[in-house]
Amino acid sequence: MAVSVTFLGGLGEIGRNCAAVEIDGQLILIDCGLMFPEEDMLGVDLVLPDFSWIFDRVDDLVGVVLTHGHEDHMGALAYFLREANVPVYGTDLSVEFASSRIEEMDIDAELVPVTPGEWVEVGRSIKFALVRVAHSVPSAAGVVFDTPEGLIVHSGDFKLDPTPIDGIPTDLATFGGFGRRGVRLLLADSTNAERDGFTPSEASVGPPLRHLTAEASGRVIIACFASHVHRVQQAIYAVAESGRKLAFMGRSMLRVTEIAARMGALDIPEGLVLPLKEVIQLPEHQMAVISTGSQGEPFAALSLLAQQKHKGLELHEGDTVIISATPIPGNETRVSRVINNLVRKGIIVNHGRNAAVHVSGHAARDELRTFINVIDPVSFVPVHGEVRHLHANADLARSVGVEDVNVLEDGDRIVLDGDEIRVERSVVAAGYVYIDGDIVGDVDEVLRDRRHLADDGVLIVTVGVDRENGEIVNGPHADSHGVSDETKDLHASVVEDVVEAIHELNLPVDPDALRQAIRRSAARSVKRRLSRRPVVFPVIIEI
Amino acid sequence: MAVSVTFLGGLGEIGRNCAAVEIDGQLILIDCGLMFPEEDMLGVDLVLPDFSWIFDRVDDLVGVVLTHGHEDHMGALAYFLREANVPVYGTDLSVEFASSRIEEMDIDAELVPVTPGEWVEVGRSIKFALVRVAHSVPSAAGVVFDTPEGLIVHSGDFKLDPTPIDGIPTDLATFGGFGRRGVRLLLADSTNAERDGFTPSEASVGPPLRHLTAEASGRVIIACFASHVHRVQQAIYAVAESGRKLAFMGRSMLRVTEIAARMGALDIPEGLVLPLKEVIQLPEHQMAVISTGSQGEPFAALSLLAQQKHKGLELHEGDTVIISATPIPGNETRVSRVINNLVRKGIIVNHGRNAAVHVSGHAARDELRTFINVIDPVSFVPVHGEVRHLHANADLARSVGVEDVNVLEDGDRIVLDGDEIRVERSVVAAGYVYIDGDIVGDVDEVLRDRRHLADDGVLIVTVGVDRENGEIVNGPHADSHGVSDETKDLHASVVEDVVEAIHELNLPVDPDALRQAIRRSAARSVKRRLSRRPVVFPVIIEI
Repeated sequence: MAVSVTFLGGLGEIGRNCAAVEIDGQLILIDCGLMFPEEDMLGVDLVLPDFSWIFDRVDDLVGVVLTHGHEDHMGALAYFLREANVPVYGTDLSVEFASSRIEEMDIDAELVPVTPGEWVEVGRSIKFALVRVAHSVPSAAGVVFDTPEGLIVHSGDFKLDPTPIDGIPTDLATFGGFGRRGVRLLLADSTNAERDGFTPSEASVGPPLRHLTAEASGRVIIACFASHVHRVQQAIYAVAESGRKLAFMGRSMLRVTEIAARMGALDIPEGLVLPLKEVIQLPEHQMAVISTGSQGEPFAALSLLAQQKHKGLELHEGDTVIISATPIPGNETRVSRVINNLVRKGIIVNHGRNAAVHVSGHAARDELRTFINVIDPVSFVPVHGEVRHLHANADLARSVGVEDVNVLEDGDRIVLDGDEIRVERSVVAAGYVYIDGDIVGDVDEVLRDRRHLADDGVLIVTVGVDRENGEIVNGPHADSHGVSDETKDLHASVVEDVVEAIHELNLPVDPDALRQAIRRSAARSVKRRLSRRPVVFPVIIEI
Repeated sequence: MAVSVTFLGGLGEIGRNCAAVEIDGQLILIDCGLMFPEEDMLGVDLVLPDFSWIFDRVDDLVGVVLTHGHEDHMGALAYFLREANVPVYGTDLSVEFASSRIEEMDIDAELVPVTPGEWVEVGRSIKFALVRVAHSVPSAAGVVFDTPEGLIVHSGDFKLDPTPIDGIPTDLATFGGFGRRGVRLLLADSTNAERDGFTPSEASVGPPLRHLTAEASGRVIIACFASHVHRVQQAIYAVAESGRKLAFMGRSMLRVTEIAARMGALDIPEGLVLPLKEVIQLPEHQMAVISTGSQGEPFAALSLLAQQKHKGLELHEGDTVIISATPIPGNETRVSRVINNLVRKGIIVNHGRNAAVHVSGHAARDELRTFINVIDPVSFVPVHGEVRHLHANADLARSVGVEDVNVLEDGDRIVLDGDEIRVERSVVAAGYVYIDGDIVGDVDEVLRDRRHLADDGVLIVTVGVDRENGEIVNGPHADSHGVSDETKDLHASVVEDVVEAIHELNLPVDPDALRQAIRRSAARSVKRRLSRRPVVFPVIIEI
């Protein structure tokens, strides 16, 4: 009986991770993530997988299993459950993180905490177990499916990390046990497949954090991802050791530390943390803040601090900021702006470029080779990465002797079918679905229009036409937005050129011909004058 | 007699390098560069320094001296000379590069080639010499000014590079000679002031280029900056050694290699280079192309190849692309798109991340320390970099014992005045001047408008009002662009809400009140329906 994995997202982009395993007609999703919009997706808030195929088969769907609690793996869950309310499985902390996000959107969901290492049977035919992996969020896991076609292993996002902060390294022994039993298909994280060597342990960040916090003479602000609880933990210990008091800053930092502490994933020494209001009253060398904004997000705490726009706290010369993160591709420029704004005021800024205050959460090439060797799969499909990373990971798998290696893209499916392992291309819709305001949908055309508006602005030309004889009885008037800062002359010359074009039309004027004449003459007028091509909007009122 | 340096650009951004040295009332510019627009400068083509102060003093201006032929150092020259046509000095190759750009814009200029090491006297009081430095373009130079207040040294863009391709390393002996004589002020390149160690020699790129070209079985495409003639030279030798024939691709690659070969800065073995048309007829393992597009520029040769949109050449599985460059900050995403498109087709892509095919052209921390030690200046001002890089370079200068270190920003001036060295802040205008279409000007407000349009589009609401009694006699009509893909319902509900708002107005309707009522009710209508905030444009026609 054929077993398959269908990819709805995550193959070709960082984000939007979502795949569906089908066994005997029943389906389970692995992850349900979102993607943050790229720079040319103007005005878009979030990008989701296209769930239309899975919604069509909602009766066969028995659940969602989460590998870990990052937005690119569970951020689309609320949008998904709104249409297909199935149980969600994951480690205790993963489902707790998911729960807090789902509740914000007022969705009731059945969240099922699963203990790694225990088999879970769902529906008639799905049987899976979670396996602990080390990553930049606690309680991350890979997933193993026990199927009639053999074992399928999904690594989740992972690194090996021999000395993780929570003492729980990636469980190679368990993965190796499955390897010895025989793994038919391995799906593994490709993010760092272009990076040589071994990603340093999370623990390596501790000494620099402690050292920088201890030697700072003014205030200390440490920025990192809220979900990176291990990093937050190390920052907390660094602050505690320096004898300072601590406040958390930023909505997600407050939310995540509350959950992590309550779940026992974060150790906060008694009396260390105070409300921000109290901490900022303390002498400068006795206070520290752990905040959001490590990616230069415009409205996050650190960006507000850098622009002197934060209401509670104003940084000045001699204060220390530690950005314990590196910019995700696409965020480099805005992180650099934050750093420039801080440095300009004499604030000491430590970041990935000038201090060892960050390590990646993803396995590099030697770790990937080790992992693939341990599992020794019959076939391999790289997941989680841009196309370049998928191909680099595929090459690694081939280099350690995996024979059946396939690079898939979103919308593709791999089928395990008796002796055969085959790839089916583009079997389901897998385009970007945009969240733009409240709308979920395909707004490609709208984005094209926005790009045009963004480049050269909009020009509106209004004409009143006599309904009876088709004569121009009002206007033309011109108005514009985002075209030029010298609008008066521009509008006057557009009107002049449009008038001329209208004079060439036959009476009575046909509205479509008029519209076209306005569009053409106004566009030509602006182009000649400014070499720009605004969107031209003819407004015709029949009077 | 006081001597000063005033900064018009280059302190706080990568690009737009321009400073003015003033001696006894006479002025000379060091460089005249442009900057490429950042991602939020929508529709902007180029960014220039604000020259208004120097234009006001054009009678005192005796010339421009170029350190080297890169766009960020000479790209604004044509715009500048259009208003202030003074002689331009530089090494032979620098003025040749400048000349070809200036001619494109139909400007007559007096270009004066200068031999490094020779003093040049201009006007009544300016005396300078060029000093050879190694950089990612041949014939780059630093500048030394001999002034009544002592020597001023400007490093230009440089690295030390002990084994440069043209055999001309940075002339530390000459710099050291000035150092022994006594340098009052050093201005030095800050680009890599956050990077530890020593930037590898340009020569280190040769073996990987040769190796990759030799072992390729299909076609070979090598992409790099056209102006990086040393890199082009190494690529040429790699191709020649592999027994392939070569074509150049891309407008600037053709232009620059023609100039460099004519000036003796590029050695092209006899019979190696053929027109592209002939090269693409050859068997695949006998041809190679050196092309533009290493930054993922949308219309450059490599991007067209990656999208299968190039008219002459179509790449396929087994071909090799070598991107001999790293993305400039802000270009990461588009370079990655190019790589993804190529890799997807089975093309082997070598780039800075997975092969040693690129090194920087700027000095790293140990080189900067060495350079500052050799010159041993009384005072130091870091130039060429974002604020973070300037501060890092200032810290380096302090660490090797320079006592008078000042970080300046655009618009600031440093004055050498007898015993005193002082900084004057914001003494000249130094904002961004945008080239947007044909317009040179300040378009900050226009950019704000474009950002708003880009986020949520534009909504136009048209109403005809009776001129006599102020009654609404036509409309309201709604139209939109870039707001939503479901316009019909949107427009209908906007009209409904606007009608309601208009009914609440007193008769006769006051046009301003009407405009405001339309703007408010339409905005509220779209926000309630879609959670978007388009630009609302009320058009009122009095009939």
